[in-house]
Amino acid sequence: MTHDGCIPLLDGVISPGLSEALQHIGFSPNMSEMLHYPASSSPAAPPAQVGCDPALGGIRVFGPDRALVLDGGVSLAPVSIAFRTYGRLNSERTNAILVCHALSLDQYVASDNPITGKPGWWTQMVGPGKPVDTDRYFVICSNVIGGCMGSTGPSDPDPVTGDPYGLKFPVITIADMVRAQALLMDDLGIGRLLAVIGGSMGGMQVLQWASQFPHRVHAAIPIATAARHSAQNIAFHEVGRQAIMADPDWHNGDYQRHGTLPRKGLAVARMAAHITYLSEPALHRKFGRNLQDRESLGFGFDADFQVESYLRHQGMNFVDRFDANSYLYITRAMDYFDLAADHGGVLSKAFAGTPTRFCVVSFTSDWLFPSREGRPVVHALIAAAANVSFVEIDSDKGHDAFLLYEPEMFRVLSGFLNAAADQVGVKLP
Amino acid sequence: MTHDGCIPLLDGVISPGLSEALQHIGFSPNMSEMLHYPASSSPAAPPAQVGCDPALGGIRVFGPDRALVLDGGVSLAPVSIAFRTYGRLNSERTNAILVCHALSLDQYVASDNPITGKPGWWTQMVGPGKPVDTDRYFVICSNVIGGCMGSTGPSDPDPVTGDPYGLKFPVITIADMVRAQALLMDDLGIGRLLAVIGGSMGGMQVLQWASQFPHRVHAAIPIATAARHSAQNIAFHEVGRQAIMADPDWHNGDYQRHGTLPRKGLAVARMAAHITYLSEPALHRKFGRNLQDRESLGFGFDADFQVESYLRHQGMNFVDRFDANSYLYITRAMDYFDLAADHGGVLSKAFAGTPTRFCVVSFTSDWLFPSREGRPVVHALIAAAANVSFVEIDSDKGHDAFLLYEPEMFRVLSGFLNAAADQVGVKLP
Repeated sequence: MTHDGCIPLLDGVISPGLSEALQHIGFSPNMSEMLHYPASSSPAAPPAQVGCDPALGGIRVFGPDRALVLDGGVSLAPVSIAFRTYGRLNSERTNAILVCHALSLDQYVASDNPITGKPGWWTQMVGPGKPVDTDRYFVICSNVIGGCMGSTGPSDPDPVTGDPYGLKFPVITIADMVRAQALLMDDLGIGRLLAVIGGSMGGMQVLQWASQFPHRVHAAIPIATAARHSAQNIAFHEVGRQAIMADPDWHNGDYQRHGTLPRKGLAVARMAAHITYLSEPALHRKFGRNLQDRESLGFGFDADFQVESYLRHQGMNFVDRFDANSYLYITRAMDYFDLAADHGGVLSKAFAGTPTRFCVVSFTSDWLFPSREGRPVVHALIAAAANVSFVEIDSDKGHDAFLLYEPEMFRVLSGFLNAAADQVGVKLP
Repeated sequence: MTHDGCIPLLDGVISPGLSEALQHIGFSPNMSEMLHYPASSSPAAPPAQVGCDPALGGIRVFGPDRALVLDGGVSLAPVSIAFRTYGRLNSERTNAILVCHALSLDQYVASDNPITGKPGWWTQMVGPGKPVDTDRYFVICSNVIGGCMGSTGPSDPDPVTGDPYGLKFPVITIADMVRAQALLMDDLGIGRLLAVIGGSMGGMQVLQWASQFPHRVHAAIPIATAARHSAQNIAFHEVGRQAIMADPDWHNGDYQRHGTLPRKGLAVARMAAHITYLSEPALHRKFGRNLQDRESLGFGFDADFQVESYLRHQGMNFVDRFDANSYLYITRAMDYFDLAADHGGVLSKAFAGTPTRFCVVSFTSDWLFPSREGRPVVHALIAAAANVSFVEIDSDKGHDAFLLYEPEMFRVLSGFLNAAADQVGVKLP
């Protein structure tokens, strides 16, 4: 692994907890020097060099002088933002694409995840020759604040006490996540993004970006998402949160100090959520009522059916890579998302006068963020005289379709992005 | 409350645990004499008197000589079956209707529930002048075995050890529940039922009755149900079971001996399940994103939204009236249900030569047992040359529609039942 050509890390504020977090996400100790790089003279000054080794990224730490003022009124500092980049920024800085990740994902879009060792979560979408072509575009993805992959979250030390924040971490919103990303873009010297793309909670961030920073977003691609979290989705999130909080090892969020982990509660939360990411036809096709490693029903409570075994596996795996308190905070941020409410209840006002081009994508079998949640976004954009396309893709894969092999989605995004890039006159890096 | 005219209770086997259970469900101590009524000379002999005070019912206890041989191979004895009746059996014994209850319900169809103090769960459907008219029909509903309202279940004492069964209780199936009901019908002297009616798991029992005892069922009304539990539904049940089992107060099912109750786990299970009983439009109409007792978001993890508060309330209330182990066993029985599998994978064979008239009912917004699960039942019945009607009712109330005010359902059932009764020549009691 080399540091050459990597974006330097500014504002050398680093806490022991962050250092641990860094090692946790796979940074070797000898990379910690990156964190003590001298701060730039101006917050928005372009870094000395841009264009990263695709395997690299970094963590930016913003000190109290650049605290993040949250929707809840709290001033958060220090703020760490962990990110990955793919491709190279061109000299005009016009080819940057921000990818926003979903609830349980992270910045490892197209490179191996250091925790799981698995490939990035969107390798079919992002990479050389892929729809989001890293031979042409410079792709950035940062871990959301509140997360647990290097960006500031509830498992980080509270600077006041030195102990992990736990439930003392302030509740954050989608807009707060976007503000943090904007801070990162400032530091990367990227004034205007060619595109912001994301699915699910990532799509909420896309809509928030376009609404909050319309002149910084040339094109927006919200996928399998909504402009507000529905009652049913809040209900499912509440089940997950209650499952975590019911686990005595959660210790009112203070499990780090108690040396425990609410593994069972988090696993149940993940199991419930995972069902909502799929579709009944997909589950039926994949598992049906097939039995797991047995010829006949066991007449007990072991996993008789493959679908039970699969779900248990999903729950247990999640615990090894995700923080329970982060799960609480990020689900809360999604529940709070209601873009129209921030604009007097009129969604089109969230996009008034927008110069952004939109491509809204939904999937027919997605029942978590169904097309009926995507259409009001399109209608609002039309009412705001925006340039908007709406594509409903026929798929039986449910909400997770946006992460899977969906050739129509690839074609749509590829075409839309190429047209947007051509419009801007994006040159190769 | 009077005992006059009530069906006597046969086979005087009574355990201390059962006595407790009786008191638990509201039977006063001076009613225990009912339980020591002498056994009839013949199992199928009609009781001395039939026709009950609508407020009454009883518990039948079947001793080892009438053990229930379960699908899992276990011989269960003693077996208690708790039931309620409404209306009067006519002299020809042709006006009996069996109502089968759903997962979390009980025998209190149309009379106050002694645990909750609330009205019966189907008072709009069953009663004088109602679609299931107790002025004309004699209605019986028994608590399913495995349940916790007086019928033998995991909280009862294991006759071998005297301790509560807990996980030593055998896994039961829908067919086992139906066998127990048939045993009760034998004892009530009811050879042939005018109709068997039920929604959800009750509908599974209806299909099982028609398949297993075709000559004992004149008409069958399976509502909002399926001939097999889908992969998605198994998945939701597994989440609930894991939530219960994750609760340390569950003690591997042995919580009675530990003096604990897995309250939190059972509440989470109920919350997850409850979402599946509703529909997104119904949740949106009822709650939307309305806040609970506050003007603005609380930026914390209290119940900000009404839907959260409602769900928590549902979870907590359930714990006061339902047994966690019963929840495990009854969900398992539903998961195991696959009527075609018992007939070489061909559903129509389950109904070969059936003389029963069927009315299959589904609801457009039911996503737990959608119409696409009801239609294969209808197709199989058609292939079996059965007399079958299929009614898909337009409703936005989700799965719970069958328990709610649905005038079209009332009209359909009323008409279907009247026609069935006229065909049989049912006389008033």
